[in-house]
Amino acid sequence: MAEKDLKALFVHQLKDTYFAENAILKALPQMAEAAQSEELKGALAVHLRKTESQVKRREQVCHLSGERPLGVPCKAIQGIIEEGQEVLREFQGGEALDAGLIAAAQAVEHYEITRYGTLLAWAKQLGLSEAAGLLEETLVEEENTDEVLSELAEDAINPAAASA
Amino acid sequence: MAEKDLKALFVHQLKDTYFAENAILKALPQMAEAAQSEELKGALAVHLRKTESQVKRREQVCHLSGERPLGVPCKAIQGIIEEGQEVLREFQGGEALDAGLIAAAQAVEHYEITRYGTLLAWAKQLGLSEAAGLLEETLVEEENTDEVLSELAEDAINPAAASA
Repeated sequence: MAEKDLKALFVHQLKDTYFAENAILKALPQMAEAAQSEELKGALAVHLRKTESQVKRREQVCHLSGERPLGVPCKAIQGIIEEGQEVLREFQGGEALDAGLIAAAQAVEHYEITRYGTLLAWAKQLGLSEAAGLLEETLVEEENTDEVLSELAEDAINPAAASA
Repeated sequence: MAEKDLKALFVHQLKDTYFAENAILKALPQMAEAAQSEELKGALAVHLRKTESQVKRREQVCHLSGERPLGVPCKAIQGIIEEGQEVLREFQGGEALDAGLIAAAQAVEHYEITRYGTLLAWAKQLGLSEAAGLLEETLVEEENTDEVLSELAEDAINPAAASA
């Protein structure tokens, strides 16, 4: 019978996050290409670069926890990304496209914030202090990206969408 | 051809949130029943009651925006809830079940936080100030629930899972 303890749950969540990050790496270039504003293209490119280093950091967490960095399908991120693609198809060529793309990117961010927040709490509880440090670094990065996207939306993208 | 402006995007997102809230209303009682800790059962019951008033508040937002309170399928929340159900099946009877349930509930919270945050920003941009007030009320509630769940996890559920 499989283990059902907190360590097993931590490993399960790590694998889910691995799958999610790889799905995000595939989706971001498509979103950046579709974006109309240069600022949003830039912000999504930064998000992509940060996700790449988060993947490496997460691999380190796996090694520290004695686990192989494998993934398990993550239906949540698949659904979040599919919704973003629907908005892209539906609002393509329209003035609100970039506002929809930012909303999609922030939904991705919040998924990562909740999962990394949970992983961090579990790592601390399990006494995995080095892993916790790496997870905290990623969590802070995700929270900052979300804030940058909110500011970009409120200062530039939403007013442009409303005045077009 | 369908409108592609910010108002159309706002309405699209409102409908998505309607579907999401109804899916959450169905999922929460199952999670509360599965929870082992009385504190977690209580927190999920509070979450359910708040979601019910959020549904009513969202209907008001629809009326204020001149829209009927209909839903469109929301793949993101379906995926998030399905992942929670997987954890429930996998960790049932194990000491980490409640930790997994809190993680699932927080993933739901963060989905609502990102969507209501976006809806609030769009409502403000569109000059829908009464709707913005209602959306802000829900957003603050979601953020508080997330914080309460984090505290419960760190103070009680995670230590219990690790020491079982």
